[in-house]
Amino acid sequence: MIVGTISSMNHKPIIALITDFGTQDAYVGTMKGVLLSICPAARLVDLTHAIPPQQVRQAAYVLLTAFRHFPPETVFLVVVDPGVGTAREPVAVQTDQGVYVAPNNGVLSYVLARVQDQQAVVLDNPAYHLADVSQTFHGRDIFSPAAAHLANGVAIERLGSPADVLRLDDPTLVITAAGIHGEVLHVDHFGNVITSIGYLAWTGPDTLSLTPAFGAQQQAPITLNAAACSIVIGSRTLQPIHTTYGAVPPGTLTPLVGSSGQLEIGVNQGNAAQVLGVSPGDPVILRLANEE
Amino acid sequence: MIVGTISSMNHKPIIALITDFGTQDAYVGTMKGVLLSICPAARLVDLTHAIPPQQVRQAAYVLLTAFRHFPPETVFLVVVDPGVGTAREPVAVQTDQGVYVAPNNGVLSYVLARVQDQQAVVLDNPAYHLADVSQTFHGRDIFSPAAAHLANGVAIERLGSPADVLRLDDPTLVITAAGIHGEVLHVDHFGNVITSIGYLAWTGPDTLSLTPAFGAQQQAPITLNAAACSIVIGSRTLQPIHTTYGAVPPGTLTPLVGSSGQLEIGVNQGNAAQVLGVSPGDPVILRLANEE
Amino acid sequence: MIVGTISSMNHKPIIALITDFGTQDAYVGTMKGVLLSICPAARLVDLTHAIPPQQVRQAAYVLLTAFRHFPPETVFLVVVDPGVGTAREPVAVQTDQGVYVAPNNGVLSYVLARVQDQQAVVLDNPAYHLADVSQTFHGRDIFSPAAAHLANGVAIERLGSPADVLRLDDPTLVITAAGIHGEVLHVDHFGNVITSIGYLAWTGPDTLSLTPAFGAQQQAPITLNAAACSIVIGSRTLQPIHTTYGAVPPGTLTPLVGSSGQLEIGVNQGNAAQVLGVSPGDPVILRLANEE
Repeated sequence: MIVGTISSMNHKPIIALITDFGTQDAYVGTMKGVLLSICPAARLVDLTHAIPPQQVRQAAYVLLTAFRHFPPETVFLVVVDPGVGTAREPVAVQTDQGVYVAPNNGVLSYVLARVQDQQAVVLDNPAYHLADVSQTFHGRDIFSPAAAHLANGVAIERLGSPADVLRLDDPTLVITAAGIHGEVLHVDHFGNVITSIGYLAWTGPDTLSLTPAFGAQQQAPITLNAAACSIVIGSRTLQPIHTTYGAVPPGTLTPLVGSSGQLEIGVNQGNAAQVLGVSPGDPVILRLANEE
Repeated sequence: MIVGTISSMNHKPIIALITDFGTQDAYVGTMKGVLLSICPAARLVDLTHAIPPQQVRQAAYVLLTAFRHFPPETVFLVVVDPGVGTAREPVAVQTDQGVYVAPNNGVLSYVLARVQDQQAVVLDNPAYHLADVSQTFHGRDIFSPAAAHLANGVAIERLGSPADVLRLDDPTLVITAAGIHGEVLHVDHFGNVITSIGYLAWTGPDTLSLTPAFGAQQQAPITLNAAACSIVIGSRTLQPIHTTYGAVPPGTLTPLVGSSGQLEIGVNQGNAAQVLGVSPGDPVILRLANEE
Repeated sequence: MIVGTISSMNHKPIIALITDFGTQDAYVGTMKGVLLSICPAARLVDLTHAIPPQQVRQAAYVLLTAFRHFPPETVFLVVVDPGVGTAREPVAVQTDQGVYVAPNNGVLSYVLARVQDQQAVVLDNPAYHLADVSQTFHGRDIFSPAAAHLANGVAIERLGSPADVLRLDDPTLVITAAGIHGEVLHVDHFGNVITSIGYLAWTGPDTLSLTPAFGAQQQAPITLNAAACSIVIGSRTLQPIHTTYGAVPPGTLTPLVGSSGQLEIGVNQGNAAQVLGVSPGDPVILRLANEE
């Protein structure tokens, strides 16, 4: 049982943070002061604080790329929250791979589609808030104390009322006979273009399986022929799907399966987003057969 | 007594860093190497390293936003220092809420106006410097060793000679019968415009108290009527002061009391600095009554 | 012996990271999840993640600025790797000042020219990789596990086959009778221009010694007269070499010896790279005598 593990003597819990706060202010540092005041043993890890302001789906994707690589009792503190000061609820969710503290706005959707044993509460017990809750900085006053108390081994049901159903975002993924329509989800530091089309996995030298899994919309896997597929993005049609950037010459565009299973467009030693002229929200189509 | 607490067995001191060094070089990482070499038990927290180069007052404000949320024995290492290589003195100050290591250039002014039990020294004891002090990187060679030794529980008086008076910046705050004249102090990651007008606190549904407290210039609180006040900034006159961004429709400007008590101008789900066209140093006036 | 020290009870190893991954994605955070999963006691320090993509020599320089200021058993995890997906080998090198995990592309050249007792292996033992090695993220799947196992005290020879010779970059430094020809290596956060000309050290009020030391190209020190030297960079000829920015009036350009021993051009309280209009790769000449 996770709580037992966390509260064991000498335990050094991990709290991993993801926010849209940037690092030019001390907002993140202030949250860390709260975390260490309540849970002095915590080890704090920054996932990123550079989510574009209030871009919930990009945050959901970035969290997806990281969560499996942490110990299962890790507390993930996610504060990307267009609704501060409004009625959206702060929640905590305990699973078999991570404990999550976040606004209930869909930011956990990618992860929750991939984990088990979910128990969720609304953070409505003021005993686990800071003494003075501001109306503008719930990350400091509500989310951080909850994460720190969970890291200390406080049972999740003490933090608030049960939340039976998490409200999940609708995915942008549409699957038809002709192909799979998605969008650009994220452009990474290297200019790699990550799309909402996933989860993809190689099942043979030329075959891929596709398991759509954003939020509740889980479906049976679809089998794809990597050589027959083509990807339409910007003004380009690209094929086939390769396994790595290095499979094509330097400077060349190639679709590939990214390190978290999303369809990705990269350029070997180059910047795909610049070459394609695309940014988050732009459409991308994965055609299941080559239709010249 | 703070030193006793710090030197107790098993103590895991916190050192919180704020600099204008950025994160593109290894300057901050090098300081952390020095800190952990001298104080292996230290837990290091970044407040920010993105203070605009040598902007002492913005650093003073950012430190203000964070310091109360850390344990009282935390060591704050502040290196924002236009005067490296000149005669300004490096100092350490021990208080009831934090131990501070910084250049003596006013960067501690906001915090020192709010804490007690101050004991200050100049860091002039070379036994607590690195063996080879460079002439260009005192953050590594003088400030970091001092912070690490203090975190180890070394008594502050061993680090150098007493410094009776800290030289404080003059505030830019001017209070007249017509209103309170300040300036834009900081634009945060979200475009919220934080002003030098503070410290403000709600004392009733429509009333605020204002306690000017930058450096030595402390005064008795002034009572304000939130509904009658107006704020003049850029080409706009704004009123009333609200309690949160969400009190106005998305896209709308509103004055509010920020999470550290400064007068702030925000836009619900938007960027106030862009809408107003203002940046640090621009004037702002808080009129005490509506003068149509 | 380092391994003995590392594996001792209660040891809290340091792993210091330098990458070109940026901090907008969770790539670095994911590596930290892997590091802490394998080595829960590790203390993680970011040197920088803002190396320009795939700029191996800038990474080599930034590592040089930091490595001496960490405890000698520190593990340095360096992932700046234009060759992911190609044949370059991942290596680990144990020395008397740091254990290094990096691609074998020359990124360790500056450091390895200054340390002793080198033992190097190729990371070709899959028992010390993650179970599923991707083809696009070796930082997570190969480099991080190696660093964490080394931090745990695993003997370096268990990680792979001996690597007798590390392939080192050629330096850009050319020494002639007329002067020393180098290039701009790095522009730091303050606009200071760091050059490939080093290692310089003051040996008297007016004399400097120069010890070229990039990679294998070590030479006997050359003695320079600081007052007679001039530096040609951009369209400017600058002299003499000063000891600190503050030795010249604010706004004035001056050559100096940087805090890691490289020839540097700075402006007191200003931005030298902007004033000079130079960027990495631009030529710089250190003339040994003033040739009006």
